[in-house]
Amino acid sequence: MFVNYNLLKQKIVGRGVEKPTGGTLSGHAAGEPFDKLVNQLIKEQFPNCTYRQYEYLNFLFSKNKDAKTVQARNNLFESPTLLFLLDRGKNAVEKWSVNNLFEEKQNDTADILVTKEKKFELIDVKTRNLGKKAQAPNIISAYKLAQTCAKMIDNQDFDLFDINYFQVDWRLDEKLLVCLDAHYAELFKCPPEELYINWAAAMQIQFHVDELNQNFNNETRETWARRYLKHFTTEAKRRANYMIEEFVKPFEKYLR
Amino acid sequence: MFVNYNLLKQKIVGRGVEKPTGGTLSGHAAGEPFDKLVNQLIKEQFPNCTYRQYEYLNFLFSKNKDAKTVQARNNLFESPTLLFLLDRGKNAVEKWSVNNLFEEKQNDTADILVTKEKKFELIDVKTRNLGKKAQAPNIISAYKLAQTCAKMIDNQDFDLFDINYFQVDWRLDEKLLVCLDAHYAELFKCPPEELYINWAAAMQIQFHVDELNQNFNNETRETWARRYLKHFTTEAKRRANYMIEEFVKPFEKYLR
Repeated sequence: MFVNYNLLKQKIVGRGVEKPTGGTLSGHAAGEPFDKLVNQLIKEQFPNCTYRQYEYLNFLFSKNKDAKTVQARNNLFESPTLLFLLDRGKNAVEKWSVNNLFEEKQNDTADILVTKEKKFELIDVKTRNLGKKAQAPNIISAYKLAQTCAKMIDNQDFDLFDINYFQVDWRLDEKLLVCLDAHYAELFKCPPEELYINWAAAMQIQFHVDELNQNFNNETRETWARRYLKHFTTEAKRRANYMIEEFVKPFEKYLR
Repeated sequence: MFVNYNLLKQKIVGRGVEKPTGGTLSGHAAGEPFDKLVNQLIKEQFPNCTYRQYEYLNFLFSKNKDAKTVQARNNLFESPTLLFLLDRGKNAVEKWSVNNLFEEKQNDTADILVTKEKKFELIDVKTRNLGKKAQAPNIISAYKLAQTCAKMIDNQDFDLFDINYFQVDWRLDEKLLVCLDAHYAELFKCPPEELYINWAAAMQIQFHVDELNQNFNNETRETWARRYLKHFTTEAKRRANYMIEEFVKPFEKYLR
């Protein structure tokens, strides 16, 4: 972990951003200005190795102009796991050029990427409106995380990257959204069994960063990956059974 | 069916609405002004029996002030099926009063309700940006529709209500969103087996109104309901099996 989140918190608490005009203050609209502010503050900590995910891809492909095929570009990543987490679709990678750079995409894995000495910190910025009781936000696809864990095991990628979350708590004050508190949490410090999977919501893991259990300690990242895969498959089986119980059985009497 | 959709189409094609300020022109933001315009045009056809769903509930409860308990208010609906489709939560119904009216809610079943002679037409307005290739929008929860079909059969509600969709095709022209075409379709005219259920997207049925098959004819509404329940349960079983194949089996080798 590179980012000093305590320092980040000190710098952001008390800061205000302009209220986005038009529309509701829902998740994405309110989040954007804080996301940009967090990005800027992390960049102050690491001026030369902080990227948006798409910026990193543009940087990586630009400094390796000889890599022209999809295969050659895939090989630029430190590992297949990282390729899986950061890459764009095959078609987009094929079409990439210095004149056709990647742009930001809402379903990129990370908002921010800090990388040094071949290690990677993926950071996702979440925002929470203190004036409203809201459902826990989408964090990452539980299936994507399962595929990531399988690749981590296959490639023995156990200390190549971290996935961390930074949450900005804000309240509307006149025309400003003011940050009143902030929190951070590490995905791989949460006991995998504690991760809630919302199957109906695109299989997303959902949590509020400030409520995430951080008690996974004294065990290896490989154990984390295997325990997560146990959790994911158990929950998938549970959901499949639930579907039969809730969506099939009650209606059987109407079928003739 | 009360609404004359051909007339509605004639009146709306060519009309422009102001571009919502701020944010992206995504589904909900762009849809709202057209939804309001459609509402107004339907009201011109039926000045005294066109409601927003919440307006109808306020109207129904207001003219029956003696009905004060949840049970008494539930009995005001023509049938349990309609109650299921239109009602708010128990808690909200309990707290309703002329001084505490219902407001619009995004997950109400219908945008617009036309009711005459104890028949109901539920109308949902969809908008399609012709400048963008977009996924088919969420129509209704496949599970909610299954519950509706079961109640239709239980209560023999086969000609109490219709559920219809009206789609406004628009294009951005300077500062206006201009309607270039419009389409309507009836849910109960689509062969039930043709309805696509997106299990990961909150079990939503998804379609573009202009692409909806309308060939269900010469058969009863009861047949529709039973065929839909067959379709829904078949698809639920298929999805449960898919979950085991995709989300359990590939990861079993990592479990020890």
